[in-house]
Amino acid sequence: MGWSLPENLSTPALVVDHDVLVANVGRMAARMRHRGVALRPHAKTHKSLDVAALQRDHGATGLTVATVGEAEVFAAGGHDDLFIAYPVIAKWGKTERLARLAASVRLSLGVDSLPAAQLLVDGGLAGTATVMVEVDTGQHRSGVPPEAAGPLAEAVADLGLEVEGVFTHGGHGYWTPDAPAGAARDEVARLGQAVDSLARWGIATSRVSAGSSPTVLGSAMAPVTEERPGTYVFNDRQQVALGVADSEQVALVVAATVVSTAVRGQVVIDAGSKSLGSDRPRWLEGFGTVPELDGAMVTSLSECHGIVVIDERTPPRVGTMVRVVPNHVCPVVNLFDSYDVVVGGELVDRWPVSARGHLA
Amino acid sequence: MGWSLPENLSTPALVVDHDVLVANVGRMAARMRHRGVALRPHAKTHKSLDVAALQRDHGATGLTVATVGEAEVFAAGGHDDLFIAYPVIAKWGKTERLARLAASVRLSLGVDSLPAAQLLVDGGLAGTATVMVEVDTGQHRSGVPPEAAGPLAEAVADLGLEVEGVFTHGGHGYWTPDAPAGAARDEVARLGQAVDSLARWGIATSRVSAGSSPTVLGSAMAPVTEERPGTYVFNDRQQVALGVADSEQVALVVAATVVSTAVRGQVVIDAGSKSLGSDRPRWLEGFGTVPELDGAMVTSLSECHGIVVIDERTPPRVGTMVRVVPNHVCPVVNLFDSYDVVVGGELVDRWPVSARGHLA
Repeated sequence: MGWSLPENLSTPALVVDHDVLVANVGRMAARMRHRGVALRPHAKTHKSLDVAALQRDHGATGLTVATVGEAEVFAAGGHDDLFIAYPVIAKWGKTERLARLAASVRLSLGVDSLPAAQLLVDGGLAGTATVMVEVDTGQHRSGVPPEAAGPLAEAVADLGLEVEGVFTHGGHGYWTPDAPAGAARDEVARLGQAVDSLARWGIATSRVSAGSSPTVLGSAMAPVTEERPGTYVFNDRQQVALGVADSEQVALVVAATVVSTAVRGQVVIDAGSKSLGSDRPRWLEGFGTVPELDGAMVTSLSECHGIVVIDERTPPRVGTMVRVVPNHVCPVVNLFDSYDVVVGGELVDRWPVSARGHLA
Repeated sequence: MGWSLPENLSTPALVVDHDVLVANVGRMAARMRHRGVALRPHAKTHKSLDVAALQRDHGATGLTVATVGEAEVFAAGGHDDLFIAYPVIAKWGKTERLARLAASVRLSLGVDSLPAAQLLVDGGLAGTATVMVEVDTGQHRSGVPPEAAGPLAEAVADLGLEVEGVFTHGGHGYWTPDAPAGAARDEVARLGQAVDSLARWGIATSRVSAGSSPTVLGSAMAPVTEERPGTYVFNDRQQVALGVADSEQVALVVAATVVSTAVRGQVVIDAGSKSLGSDRPRWLEGFGTVPELDGAMVTSLSECHGIVVIDERTPPRVGTMVRVVPNHVCPVVNLFDSYDVVVGGELVDRWPVSARGHLA
């Protein structure tokens, strides 16, 4: 990691290097343009109007979000083409909010069941929002099997909803360090089967959406027309371990201070689970790495304490500031209210995490 | 769990039952009064001025917080006796903030090293804030060994800081389901050794502070003069598994909606790691339980998806609202901006999570 921290941070802090961020945003945009695939980045990673504006300036065709609340924040920020890539349930106040959104932006919604589609119709969303049928391409989280996409699409269309196409999230690309390539192939193959299934039921498909940062390069080909990676803007320890980013492409760290060296063989930093999150894939040890301590690992977390096991006989002094590369950046960003933005090791801006929370 | 959800929630939601909360707050206060031990609850759990007011009304002598930012929120809310039970590093803007706090409230600060104490002195805090020496009683996170407490206290006092006493967190009470009793005994015994060590170095101890929700009942005895439990206000799956709360004393759940039943043998709810956190002790499987689904477990999490494995051939319908009892409530509260407060199954209030974030 070629970039460094300014000294005037108050830790723990969420710090982003502007040069690396812009390079990451630009690189993905150029690659998708070259493949002729639309880029609709997932904004759940950054939850930031500033980062979303960068993505738009580099040619993103719209944004992906996970919740109605996130859609509202980005709509208010001037983004007019939003896809809630989630099985949206239009109940308990969300119906009215979805109707307001659909009246102001081009809104598409995920659906993987007829009851959920019926709720959209009951909420008056037919004709104002479009739907994308979610397909399970191997993650087995949500989404119907490819061969069931056609019958569901036909039933949804019969309710009066406009079906634009199909989407998937090849999240099984995160399951092992060598999973991304296979998961990307699954996305392409099974979305193809889903498109065929829709065709057999008389439904034309104009949008075929795939995506995750690990699978985006492997799946950006026909029949896929759109990709929705999120994490690529910042990258993290997991993306590097999956082999889809190198450490020079990590744009975000949590800055922390060594607060205790009282217990031998370790230091305690002021970044715990409330700033690093507790996400850890089964195949990765620890909760982050510390470049300033020879890449030592954060081995355990309390809420405001992170324990870093060190080899050195002389630990760093209490008061030393260090960087932590977190395992998974999305939940980390969601814990902070703002980014400290750095250029050339100097603090130049503070960006709000505008859609922090907004879970409902 | 005898209480139920109102229907007009927008999920995922942080829901607290007022009756159970008040009973929990009152029970702990009565027990500590009976033991003659001061109760200084840890506000990192609730981060709420409303809950802190309840605790004060029930006789709490002050509040414990983990960060300077939390102290500022509770000071602004009228709490005038605050203990930052953390090895505070007075650098990078925190010095001035600590000085402002010390000028407006009775402020005590944790210290476990001489460099950290020197920073407090350099920041002009001698004479305005007091310090408590942190003692490691078995968790091996921060704090000095009991026998080193005296020398450190003497050196800290030599710098001009007033040493009030010693404190510990018997966090090893969380390590196994039967750990609380032993950890409580460790707190009492090793704080006793620390008091002796201070006495040998000529330092009188007026405050001896222990605490965690699992160890509070076992350690509320001489020489301990103060307890700092946090989680007891709400309880959670972990406290029940540790045998220090029963399920009728769980005051907080995350309300979630079934959003997908497309994959057989499971349902997907709209509470994932961004609303349940990813905390999981080694000895507990899963990320929460769902009373409405026969106590089924949340077996895996994405950011906005929780997978609940179910036995039933007929899964609950898409759109069904359920409660999730989270593993560890503190990081969960920190993900939400407000509590939905329920009395008798009816939504009666919304309380802000006023100190959400405020990590630095």
